[in-house]
Amino acid sequence: MRCEVIAVGTELLLGQIVDTNSAWMGGQLALAGIDSHFQTKVGDNHERMVSALRLALGRADAVILCGGLGPTQDDITRDAIAEVMGVGLVRDESVADHLRAYFKARGREMPLSNLRQADVPAGASRIPQMPGTAPGLVCPLGEKVIYAVPGVPYEMRIMLEGTVLPDLKRRAGVSSVIRSRTLRTWGTSEARLGELCADRLDVLEGTGRATIAFLASGIEGLKVRVTAKAESEEAVSRVLDEEETHLRRILGDLVFGVDDESMEKVVLGLLEERGLTLAVAESVTGGMVAMRLTAVPGASAVFRGGVVAYASEVKHDVISVPRGPVVSLGAARAMAAGVCARLGADVGLATTGVAGPEGQEGHAPGTVFLGLHRNGEGEAHEVRLPGDRERIRQYAVIALLNLLRLRLVGSSLPAVPRN
Amino acid sequence: MRCEVIAVGTELLLGQIVDTNSAWMGGQLALAGIDSHFQTKVGDNHERMVSALRLALGRADAVILCGGLGPTQDDITRDAIAEVMGVGLVRDESVADHLRAYFKARGREMPLSNLRQADVPAGASRIPQMPGTAPGLVCPLGEKVIYAVPGVPYEMRIMLEGTVLPDLKRRAGVSSVIRSRTLRTWGTSEARLGELCADRLDVLEGTGRATIAFLASGIEGLKVRVTAKAESEEAVSRVLDEEETHLRRILGDLVFGVDDESMEKVVLGLLEERGLTLAVAESVTGGMVAMRLTAVPGASAVFRGGVVAYASEVKHDVISVPRGPVVSLGAARAMAAGVCARLGADVGLATTGVAGPEGQEGHAPGTVFLGLHRNGEGEAHEVRLPGDRERIRQYAVIALLNLLRLRLVGSSLPAVPRN
Repeated sequence: MRCEVIAVGTELLLGQIVDTNSAWMGGQLALAGIDSHFQTKVGDNHERMVSALRLALGRADAVILCGGLGPTQDDITRDAIAEVMGVGLVRDESVADHLRAYFKARGREMPLSNLRQADVPAGASRIPQMPGTAPGLVCPLGEKVIYAVPGVPYEMRIMLEGTVLPDLKRRAGVSSVIRSRTLRTWGTSEARLGELCADRLDVLEGTGRATIAFLASGIEGLKVRVTAKAESEEAVSRVLDEEETHLRRILGDLVFGVDDESMEKVVLGLLEERGLTLAVAESVTGGMVAMRLTAVPGASAVFRGGVVAYASEVKHDVISVPRGPVVSLGAARAMAAGVCARLGADVGLATTGVAGPEGQEGHAPGTVFLGLHRNGEGEAHEVRLPGDRERIRQYAVIALLNLLRLRLVGSSLPAVPRN
Repeated sequence: MRCEVIAVGTELLLGQIVDTNSAWMGGQLALAGIDSHFQTKVGDNHERMVSALRLALGRADAVILCGGLGPTQDDITRDAIAEVMGVGLVRDESVADHLRAYFKARGREMPLSNLRQADVPAGASRIPQMPGTAPGLVCPLGEKVIYAVPGVPYEMRIMLEGTVLPDLKRRAGVSSVIRSRTLRTWGTSEARLGELCADRLDVLEGTGRATIAFLASGIEGLKVRVTAKAESEEAVSRVLDEEETHLRRILGDLVFGVDDESMEKVVLGLLEERGLTLAVAESVTGGMVAMRLTAVPGASAVFRGGVVAYASEVKHDVISVPRGPVVSLGAARAMAAGVCARLGADVGLATTGVAGPEGQEGHAPGTVFLGLHRNGEGEAHEVRLPGDRERIRQYAVIALLNLLRLRLVGSSLPAVPRN
């Protein structure tokens, strides 16, 4: 069973709106075990909508058209479907009644133009869920089917969950369950990850019990996603549990979290388990470490605060950094110790460095020093970070958080990436 | 001249990543006066990539393929293009050298698998811009052309702006110049903006010399984009200058910047003009104000630093906030004054409030107090902000920066938006 998604709307092609609907529908189709090989965006143009629809029907058993069901002249999805079905539009009185009721309930006069929404292709049936004024449609075409749903995300979702997905699964006779689990790694390259997992990938290719994909997520690291298909939720989780065990054995402390766990969430959790409080002193990252930590609800249980020591005098006066070079291992160590003492925290973190565009104290942009202070002992590390000012800063933040994570779990991995 | 965009990646079809690249590229193509009638998403599958590419080449003069240029086995964009071109892959030594240099500059060993990225279709030329390890490609095919760019947004954008768009315009023989200028506003609604600009819109509709569009950009405010088309850069800038003058007269201090000018950049500029330094004390925003300010190159000329006073004791001990309720107008004023004194700045800003999910000191999530201290005088304002924890924090940051902007320009607009 294959189903394609076509998003309708010139504003999508012009980039005035990002098409998030197709992504959501793609995820739902995958979870339902239905293949979706192509997604298309097409403008509000009759001829091109018809051609996109015919093309999709030629490649797939079902097509979901999203958008173009409104009351205005450029809402022509109904007409395009009618042409492909080779039928005319007929007034669906149940839709007309629904529209009148919808406006009446809001004490508003229904603009006559809204009645256009009640004209549907002959042979199409209305999707019962209708939270707005746009009716969703199920349009059978021989063995195949066209679904039309509105572009308003919440209306679309209600119709997909209520009618489209169940109808697709019934047609596909789908009984199996497909689930994914993502191991989140940080500190190595996609190529290296591929090398480490190569043997496991071969085994899985042989058995076909699961697939593994590597997904880059920028400075947040690399995701290793395991996807399995089985007859029941229990069976599929068993497979995912086993694969997670295998991969964790292979990847060790490179794995920092699972699925939606962020680095900061993981670090705060490790600190809380150990009853430790945290303070940060930031120069080059200018508040980004504190910002990321405080984005996590409940951070206040662990995070006391920080000092953004941007000007050198602030480093000296507020967190007692000795005079001298402020872009150095020594300064990073002193900042971590200073903020720890000043804010009364158990653990102190610090960043100092050069984000660019200009260099500083003879260091090139991308040179960053990370400091960590705990149990009265300090350490500092130099990293060379790629990219522009923004990326250098973001990279420094996550490298610092990962350094703390490695120390808290007592890892033997290098303090900063060396691959 | 028609150009289609094909986004490559199974993760896009599965909805694990939302394809924002295509939307951005669509917007850029429109601004360049190049038609784009279809956008397609296809998975990492050779056969389907080839068919999508052939289909697009049949409908358009140019195709931009985005993604699938990485070093792993499932990065097969290069192979798909080679098949469509009817050629083999050849090692591009300039790419190989670039890759070696890229890793060397970061003191890292290059995994051999990365060299796959240097194998490009015979006849393809490398896009000179190469910020990462994935080479962009220009692949001529008779009168038509295929461009391949990486899926990493910032790498893709650099290549589009540096090579793809200029090459497309040259091929299209686009002579007339289309330019846009965006006035950025903050503190009013889209409806109000429409009312204010209604008369000017009528005038423009009559003359057709330019068009005006309102674009919402979330907490960053509303953009008023003027687009004009003329025979020369000079002529088009003249029109844009005139329209900017008209709109500024209409909108006054609601306009905080133009085009890419961010609120923080504008505020830093105003402070620098006046020879003033700035310090911030943050509780609810947890470092976001400092982070946004320090994201601007050269911020150090104005910004001395900040204190993230998350725990109450840090408010009391580090920036001398009197004991008592810390989510209050008084605390906001005291924080602004305290950080000013502690960090030796001319102007102090402060945020304290409740981001949720739980309330605090009897205040509901979304209750935020903004503090401003300058010339030995302080002020504080309460705002009720909508949305979740993240939105509340972001909204507080921009509301605070806008408050300072209004004070620096001596505006008569309300200190905080009345919503």
